[in-house]
Formats: sequence, C-alpha cells, structure tokens
Amino acid sequence: MAKSRFEYVKHFEADDRLLPHCWIVVRVDGKGFTSFAEEHAFEKPNDVRALGLMDKCAREVMQVFDDIRLAYGESDEYSFVFSKTSILYGRRSSKLVSLVTSCFTSSYVRFWAQFFPETELRRTPIFDGRAVCYPTDAILRDYLAWRQADTHINNQYNTCFWALVKSGKSRAEANQALQGTQTAFKNELLYTTFGINYSTLPAIFRKGSVILRTKSSRVVDHLVDGTPVEQETNAPTVCHDDIISNSFWDQHPELLA
Amino acid sequence: MAKSRFEYVKHFEADDRLLPHCWIVVRVDGKGFTSFAEEHAFEKPNDVRALGLMDKCAREVMQVFDDIRLAYGESDEYSFVFSKTSILYGRRSSKLVSLVTSCFTSSYVRFWAQFFPETELRRTPIFDGRAVCYPTDAILRDYLAWRQADTHINNQYNTCFWALVKSGKSRAEANQALQGTQTAFKNELLYTTFGINYSTLPAIFRKGSVILRTKSSRVVDHLVDGTPVEQETNAPTVCHDDIISNSFWDQHPELLA
Amino acid sequence: MAKSRFEYVKHFEADDRLLPHCWIVVRVDGKGFTSFAEEHAFEKPNDVRALGLMDKCAREVMQVFDDIRLAYGESDEYSFVFSKTSILYGRRSSKLVSLVTSCFTSSYVRFWAQFFPETELRRTPIFDGRAVCYPTDAILRDYLAWRQADTHINNQYNTCFWALVKSGKSRAEANQALQGTQTAFKNELLYTTFGINYSTLPAIFRKGSVILRTKSSRVVDHLVDGTPVEQETNAPTVCHDDIISNSFWDQHPELLA
Amino acid sequence: MAKSRFEYVKHFEADDRLLPHCWIVVRVDGKGFTSFAEEHAFEKPNDVRALGLMDKCAREVMQVFDDIRLAYGESDEYSFVFSKTSILYGRRSSKLVSLVTSCFTSSYVRFWAQFFPETELRRTPIFDGRAVCYPTDAILRDYLAWRQADTHINNQYNTCFWALVKSGKSRAEANQALQGTQTAFKNELLYTTFGINYSTLPAIFRKGSVILRTKSSRVVDHLVDGTPVEQETNAPTVCHDDIISNSFWDQHPELLA
Repeated sequence: MAKSRFEYVKHFEADDRLLPHCWIVVRVDGKGFTSFAEEHAFEKPNDVRALGLMDKCAREVMQVFDDIRLAYGESDEYSFVFSKTSILYGRRSSKLVSLVTSCFTSSYVRFWAQFFPETELRRTPIFDGRAVCYPTDAILRDYLAWRQADTHINNQYNTCFWALVKSGKSRAEANQALQGTQTAFKNELLYTTFGINYSTLPAIFRKGSVILRTKSSRVVDHLVDGTPVEQETNAPTVCHDDIISNSFWDQHPELLA
Repeated sequence: MAKSRFEYVKHFEADDRLLPHCWIVVRVDGKGFTSFAEEHAFEKPNDVRALGLMDKCAREVMQVFDDIRLAYGESDEYSFVFSKTSILYGRRSSKLVSLVTSCFTSSYVRFWAQFFPETELRRTPIFDGRAVCYPTDAILRDYLAWRQADTHINNQYNTCFWALVKSGKSRAEANQALQGTQTAFKNELLYTTFGINYSTLPAIFRKGSVILRTKSSRVVDHLVDGTPVEQETNAPTVCHDDIISNSFWDQHPELLA
Repeated sequence: MAKSRFEYVKHFEADDRLLPHCWIVVRVDGKGFTSFAEEHAFEKPNDVRALGLMDKCAREVMQVFDDIRLAYGESDEYSFVFSKTSILYGRRSSKLVSLVTSCFTSSYVRFWAQFFPETELRRTPIFDGRAVCYPTDAILRDYLAWRQADTHINNQYNTCFWALVKSGKSRAEANQALQGTQTAFKNELLYTTFGINYSTLPAIFRKGSVILRTKSSRVVDHLVDGTPVEQETNAPTVCHDDIISNSFWDQHPELLA
Repeated sequence: MAKSRFEYVKHFEADDRLLPHCWIVVRVDGKGFTSFAEEHAFEKPNDVRALGLMDKCAREVMQVFDDIRLAYGESDEYSFVFSKTSILYGRRSSKLVSLVTSCFTSSYVRFWAQFFPETELRRTPIFDGRAVCYPTDAILRDYLAWRQADTHINNQYNTCFWALVKSGKSRAEANQALQGTQTAFKNELLYTTFGINYSTLPAIFRKGSVILRTKSSRVVDHLVDGTPVEQETNAPTVCHDDIISNSFWDQHPELLA
C-alpha cells in the first residue's frame, strides 16, 4: 500500500503557534443558546441550574488542563486563562481551542442530568471557541474586567426586562422602556416598581463566576499505624468576587506571578 | 459602568480566515483514546459499538453544518470536508474547528448510551480538532486516500496483533512478530494461522466509514384530502466504499462539482 | 559571554509559510509615487523612461529568482508570479516579499541614471510588497486580468484627463468632466476633441508590460578549434500582450503547466 | 470593461496584522553579503566605509518612519524597533517589512558612492526582512542584547581570524586554530601574538551601532526682525554604547516609556 505517496498532504497544515510569553485566553461561547434556553425552559433572567452546570464544566476543564490559572464565566460563556509561560501542545492555537471546547462541551452533556434532573436534553449543545493572546498583565486584567463589566450590564438589563415582562408587558414594550436608560434609572425602576434591591441579588448573577485553584490538603491514604497521608491539592474552586478592582489581585498575587 | 474603557481588548483577536476557494478539511481526533478504550472495555481489534457511535456523531455534525459535503472516519478520528466555496463563519478557522469538534463531542456523550447501553461513561471523552486547506480536487482526494490507506495499514496490523495476543502471546511478543512485515506476510499469517480471510472482514473495519448526503423524498405532511406532502432531504448516509480508486468519484460527480 | 541566555528570543518569530501548491503572487507598489513622479518631472499621462525603468527592474528580479514564471507591470507596480510548486525559502512569506521588494528597489536606484540620464534622483524611492496565494490556474488568470483591466481603466482616464489639462482646463475641471463617463464616451472625446485614436496608442500604455522567459541559445565560450559553445538561456523578455483573453495562454502553455 | 468581475481576487490577501501592544522589530539582513563584500573588496575584519553606509541607510529609514524608536546594526544587518503602540499601516507585517527593507536597500544604492567613492557598485545589493513581536520591555531588551552579544562574539572571532590569515595562515588553518576557544584565549592571542588590545579597538566594531533620536533645536526660519525661528528636531544619531547593561536604559528612559 503506497502510504508515502499520500503523506505529503500533511504539509498543508499551517503552524498556528501563539506568541510566546503572552497570556492565552480561550473563550467558549454557547451557539444558539437563546433558543436552547427556551427549549429547556431555563428560568429568566438567570437559571441557577444552568449556571451551576457551566461552573461544573469549567472546573472539569481546569482539572484536565493544569496550565489554566483562572477561569471566568457568565451566562453561556467561559474564559480560561493559560499561564504566560505555558508550552502545552506547543501553544498551537487550534489544539488549545479544540481541546478546551471539546472538554467543556463533553462535560455539559455528561453532567446535564445532575443539574437538570427533570429536564431531558433535547438538543445537542454546541459551543464555539477562540484563543486570544494578551501581552501584559494589565491587558489581561482589562480583558477579564471587560467580561465582568459585560456581566453587570447584561444582568441589570435582563433583571429589569424580565421583571417588566413578568408584570405583564410584552417583550417589545419591555425593551422599549429600557432603551437608552442608565444604571441609576434601572436600579430605581427595580427598587420602586418591583421592590428589588439590585445590590442584594445573588453575587453569581451580578458578578459571574471566577474559578481559582485553592491549595488544600486532602487525606489520600493512611499508614499502618493509622497516620493519615495528606496530599496537597489545587482544586478549582468557584467564587463570585469582583475582579475589576485591585483588591482581588492583591489577595491573589500568585495569579499573575 | 465604563464599558468602553475595556472594549479595546477585542482588537487582540487575530483574523484566521482560511484561503478562499480551497477545500477545508476539519479533522477531529480522540485524545487519549487508547486508555479510554481500555477503560470502557472496547472490543479488539475493532469495536462495532464504538465505530457506530463515531458514525452517529459524524452524521449529527453533517445535519448541523450543511456546507459539509463528505466525511470520512476511522478508529477515533473523523474528517469533514467543507465545500470549496463555503463562506460559513467567514471561513474563520477557530470557529469551524471549535464548532465541529464541539458538536461531535457533544453527540458522543449524548448518544453514548444508545451504543453502549450496558457500559457507564466513566470519563469525559475529549477530541481535538484542526482545519487544513487543500487547493485542488486532486490534493483533496489524496488527503482522503491518505486517511483510508492509514485505515487499511492500521487495521491489518491490529487484526494480526490481537489474533496473536488472543492466541496467548504477550503484547511485546505480538508486536515483535509483526515488526517490518509486509501486507502479504500479514494476510498469510491471518489465513494460515488463524483461518481469517482478511478480504472478507467487514468493510467498516477495512475501509472505514464514508458519509455522503443521499437525496431522497420524505413525507413531511398531508393535505386535507390525504395527499402526502414530500420534502427532498439530503440525509447523511454511511457507506464503506473504497475512496482511493476513481470509481467512487465517477459515481459521485457532485462531490467535487 | 552568555550567548545562550538571549537566544530564546528567536522563538518569537512566527512561521509564515504560504499554502503549498498555490500560485504565489508578490506585488510591489510604489509608495507616494504621485509626488515622486512630480518631483522628477515624469511625463503625463505616461513616461516611457519611467516605464522602461520599471521593466528593467522586473527583469532584474526575474534574473535573480528563477522560480518566477511571469511578471506583469503597470504604472508604479509590478506583480511576480512564483511557480505553484516553488519551495524557495520554504515559501516563507516575509522572505519572498522582502527579497523581491529589495531587489526591485535596489535595481530602481541602480539603473535610474540609465533611464533618466539628465534627471538627478532627488529622493529615496520606496516600494511596498505583499504576497498572495491563488489556489487555481483560473483564479491566477483572474488576478492578472484584474491588473490588466485596471491598466486599461486608469490609462484611458489619464489620457483624457491630461489631454484636457494640456488643453487649458484645471485639474478639477478635467476630473469633473470625466466623472461617471463610460469607455465609449472617453474614446469619442479623445478622437473628436484631441484627434487621438485610443486603440493606436502604444501597447505599453494600454496593456502594461508582461515579462516571460524566452528560451534561446547564447554563445558562452569557444573550444580551442573555434567551435562555439552554446548555453540555453531563459532570458526575461518584455511584451505588451493581452493577457485577459485565452489566446495568450494558448500560445504559452508552459506558463500554467 | 468588466472590472468588477475580477476584483474578487482581492479577498485572497491574508490579514497579517501583528499583535497590538507588542514591540515590533523589523530586521533587515544582507543576502549573500560574504561574496558581495569580496566582490567590492571590503576590508577585513571590518570595513568602516561599509559600516558607515549601513548606519547612513538606517538613519534614512528612521527619517522616513517616525514610529521607529531605536535601531541597532552590525555587519550587514539592522534591527528597527517600532513603538509598542504604533498603528502604522495597521501593524500589517508585510507592509512594515517591505517598506523598511525597501527604504534601506534604496538608500544603500543611493548613498553607495558617498561611502565608496572609488568603488563601482558591481551587483544589485539585496536585503531580506522580517518582523517579530516582543510582548514586554524585558524581552525586547533581551532581543537587542542577543544581537549585541552576537556582534561581540563575531567580531572577536573575526579579528583573530583575519589577524591569523594576514600573518600567513590559510583560512582553514586560522579557523582550525580558533575552534572551541574561549574569550580569554582569543584576547590573549590578539595581545601576545599581534599586539592588539581588543578592548581598545573602535567601539563600532566591538559594540555595533545604536541609533537614537536626539532632541535638539534647529533654526528653520527668521522673523522679519531677524529673530530666529527654531524647530525641535529628533534627528537619528548614531552611538556605539553597550545596550546590554542597565546603565544605557537608565540614561534613556524615554525609549521604553
């Protein structure tokens, strides 16, 4: 069998290694999740089950890929930050993008029933992925700030929108009522009309999810005399901190170290 | 909320559009499937359930992405051929790679139980993906021939290897016995020692799976008087044809048209 | 001297190899040549000395780079077509672009005085360059047709424009008079008002310059008895043929072979 | 003329914009300069005329491209550092590479006679070019240190090599005598055998050339009463400083600002 005659086709593959010494962010994003959410009756404006599933998938990705330092998620998207010095798969963009997206998607289906025990998965959920390089710590922080600011803006809008819709307005009317309004107006609307104090809504809705690796010890075995054998772990742990302000980064100096 | 202050980070995303008027092949490949197969007790040398699941996933991908003309799969990999003139997602490489890989993976988990009703999925299956451009029909055919030639070489080796192992040899001994041997020797070994006529093994093992779109009519509704309303479909259909020789392409002129 | 400590910086260089088996076109283009032409009193609408110098530079480029099959030039630009199968410099884009542009520019200054014996070079002429891949012969022909169609459009406009300006109109008036006019109108204007039959203008103005390699024999030495020793050459030769129609390609089947 | 029919070919041009907020280094390098140097009888191991011409060309490039902060040259190569925040030509790699290389080459031919008044230019000098991104100040400094360390290593070797050759050794013998020797050995050889104190050789040979912009005032006009009108200039100025140690960067904080 003339194997070698065809093997030249391998040379058409392009080299897509990402620039060394830059932070690599791989972001996955749900494809067509507006209709996916409707089909599976997600609660509006936020569904804790769906957000919990997203967080679970992101933790799974971080378990598989050690070089991910940090992840940030909101709604149907998640960003994974690979260490600047990571040389995983030679920093090849399509390898990193496809593997992270595949692992995330795989987990989404695998753990669906844990989060939606009473809802059958009716459609194949699909995510897209992309990799972007950020050359400095400051720009990486701006990237994460961009996503968290987006979370706030979307959540505030959606909280108002769905409060109006649940109060009887049509979707078009609700949208109309919010066009061009500012933060202060929306907060006032929520408080006065619906009795909602925006700042006391769950942090997961307002701030999204941040996943860090938390160092801790875990008993993995016992010696003959019963002495516990501990192993240090770096378990991915979810929080909902503000990652725009400096205090978060001051508390976690290892993230950018 | 100073949204715009952070939005500049979007400009770091690179433009990865693939060259126009080239065939685009997106290939997905199982990550760590040797151990995945062992963990789930796949039959050796070929597991019809696992191959059936792969084919099912590939058909699902073709249902979602109309611009895929043809797919070819073997073992834990599948190649999807997008039309030369496809402008799906602006031909952006990371979009195409991530979406195809995600859809494939999602289907793998979703349909697992259909193909492995008695085997629990114990691990998150992960696939990588890549996109490669091929400028001419002839080179695309060589790409597909490369994969099908690979199927043959691997399958013949694996058939011998597992026959030897099942007959009592260790894996090292089996591997040793096959080092540097040619096709004729392996066929002879199978026939003489194990009574296996290689050429009568199932085509799916020897040739892999080819998925084409088959034009057919389907009754989708009925008029008041009972007249059936038909819709033409292009259902992805699996076959195990030889795609190296010319006859396959002569029979399906629409593939390269 | 800690040489190795710094050498890691080499890894930041990106791999920019162009897709195999595609035609590579490297196009060089004068930067700021409108003012360059004025500063050196180029004749309008066409300066035969300037065009001759461009053709000379392009021939020099073709002498240096054997893998160039064909070149096409007009005004202050030149396109060089590398063979589909060229592996010169591993098909690295920046190598091909920079070397061709450098050779062209170098020749422009070096041979300036041959074409402008009475005009001192007052400024450093600069060209930019780019490389583009074309996957098929038909698309390569369309590329060349695009440039030659452009030559025609520009030359017809410029011939009218400068005839009007030389007849006493301001540049703004000349431009105004030609806005939105068609080919037939311009030909009529030239013929009726200025007595110019467009189709009899020199082909170099109307069609630009095509450079082919012409096989011929050249005496390179003599044996002791005086017998001439001939060497076959492939000297780049300029013509002004129509490269849009099929007849040119029928006459030169080796170009796309 | 069916212009639009062909214009689609423009879409085959790839987007090659370099990552924002990274330093861009464009390096030009002589092609075949060993034989070019011999053909034009360059002095060995260093030719001050040739180095002066290189410096002149680099200053010309910096006059044309304001966004270049700094240049470093040695032998037949020059590196140009574009500001991190430069958006010149949209940071398109092939534009920057080709224009810098073209401007450099053009100057080389144009100013040749100033530096080699008695040597005719016998061949078209050609340079290649490439662009590389460096994400941080520290890595940019390492890049420049790499080039200057290279200058030292090459110059020390060449000084020994040519001293040996001029003393009567063949090139092969000279090379043999230096294989695997260290800095201390070479310095000792120069001092003991040839009476050369390496550290007192001209800095341009040992350190290469650094080009900075020097702020100064220049009288550009006079008012009616004779008062001079000054304009601040940023003339590119050559020095031969050590750019590996910190003191250079401490003295020029504006370079990385």
